[in-house]
Amino acid sequence: MKFFQNQIKLKPFSRGFYLITNEVLEAIPELKQINIGQLQVFIKHTSASLTINENADYTVREDFESHFNKFVPENAPYYKHNFEGSDDMPAHIKASLIGASIQIPITNGKLNLGIWQGIYLCEHRDYGGSRQLVITAFGI
Amino acid sequence: MKFFQNQIKLKPFSRGFYLITNEVLEAIPELKQINIGQLQVFIKHTSASLTINENADYTVREDFESHFNKFVPENAPYYKHNFEGSDDMPAHIKASLIGASIQIPITNGKLNLGIWQGIYLCEHRDYGGSRQLVITAFGI
Amino acid sequence: MKFFQNQIKLKPFSRGFYLITNEVLEAIPELKQINIGQLQVFIKHTSASLTINENADYTVREDFESHFNKFVPENAPYYKHNFEGSDDMPAHIKASLIGASIQIPITNGKLNLGIWQGIYLCEHRDYGGSRQLVITAFGI
Repeated sequence: MKFFQNQIKLKPFSRGFYLITNEVLEAIPELKQINIGQLQVFIKHTSASLTINENADYTVREDFESHFNKFVPENAPYYKHNFEGSDDMPAHIKASLIGASIQIPITNGKLNLGIWQGIYLCEHRDYGGSRQLVITAFGI
Repeated sequence: MKFFQNQIKLKPFSRGFYLITNEVLEAIPELKQINIGQLQVFIKHTSASLTINENADYTVREDFESHFNKFVPENAPYYKHNFEGSDDMPAHIKASLIGASIQIPITNGKLNLGIWQGIYLCEHRDYGGSRQLVITAFGI
Repeated sequence: MKFFQNQIKLKPFSRGFYLITNEVLEAIPELKQINIGQLQVFIKHTSASLTINENADYTVREDFESHFNKFVPENAPYYKHNFEGSDDMPAHIKASLIGASIQIPITNGKLNLGIWQGIYLCEHRDYGGSRQLVITAFGI
C-alpha cells in the first residue's frame, strides 16, 4: 500500500473556469508508482471549487461561467451575507454546487480519465488570490 | 489491504436518470472480500454523471429529468459552445452539477447504503451511446 | 495501512444548513493515528446531504437555505412525485446537487481543511428526523 500527499499553491486566477490537469500531474509525480488506486484533489477554500469536464474547447469553460452567474446571481434580494462583496455569497453557493474535491481512479500509473476529461479549477471570486490544493494519491 | 478495479461499458441509455445499482454490483464481485472500505464508481465522460438517490419510485427519476432540463436549459442565449447540438452544453453543465464519481462506504462485504439509496446513471445527451465506468473497491 | 469506520446518528435538525464538524470529529477519534489519509463522511439518506463550506458566519448557512428553496422550488408544475409532501421532491433534487458524501484529506492526524472550511449537514426535509452517517478514515 502506497500513500503520497503533496500540497501546492496555484497562481492566482481571475474569476472563471480553468484547466489545471497539468499542474495537478506535475505536483504528484509519485502517481506513476501506483498500479491501482485513487487520486484526490482537494481545495482548501469555500469560494472556489474543483470539477472534471471537457478539456478541449475553451468555450465550454466560458459557458460554465455564464451559466453559473445567471443561476447563482449576485445581489439576490434574499442574501444576508453580503459584507464581503457582491461576488462572495454566490461564490460560496457555487462552491458547494460543484464541490471541494474530485476523486479519480488510477490505473497503471496514470489517471484513468476519459479522453475528453480534464480537471477544472473553478474560481468564483473576482480576486480570489492563490488557491491551495492538497493532492493525495494512494493504491497498490 | 485489498484493491480491486474493473471497467465496464453500460448499454446505451436514452436521455434521463436510471438506476444502475445492480450493474455496478455485478461488475465488482470482489466487494464481498472487504470488511471496511470504499467503493468508487467513476464515469469517463463529460456529458453524463453519477449520483445516489431514491431507489423505489420511478417518478423521482422523471422529476430529476424535468427539473434539470428547466434549470439548465437548451439554447440559452449565452451559450457559445453549440456546434455539437443543443443538448451538448447543458449536458456538460449538468455533469458538473451532479459529478463524475460517487464514493460509498463498504461494511462487511456490502455497500453500506441507506435502504432507499440507489446508484443513478444520469444520461444528459439524447444519444450518448455506451458509457464507460471505472469501478474501484478497496479496504481491509 | 489503517482503516477505521464508525456509524453515528445525528440529533434531528429542522430544515436548513448546519455545521457538524465537531460531531464528525468526535465520532472518529482514531483519526489522530493517521499521518496521510482520507476521511469520508457518507449520509445514508436521499433527502439530506453533506458539503464543506464557510464555518464562521451563520448568515452564509441561512443564504444557502434561501437560495436552494428558490432554485429548487416546491410544487413545481412538472413534479410527479408529490405524495410524500411538497418538501419531498425538492429535497431529493437538492441532495443530488450537493451530494451524499464528502472526502477530506488527513495530514498528521488531523483533517487538512482550510481555516474557513467546516462540514455542513444539509437537511432538506421539514421533519427529516435523525440522520445516519457512516464515517470512514483510512491511511498510513
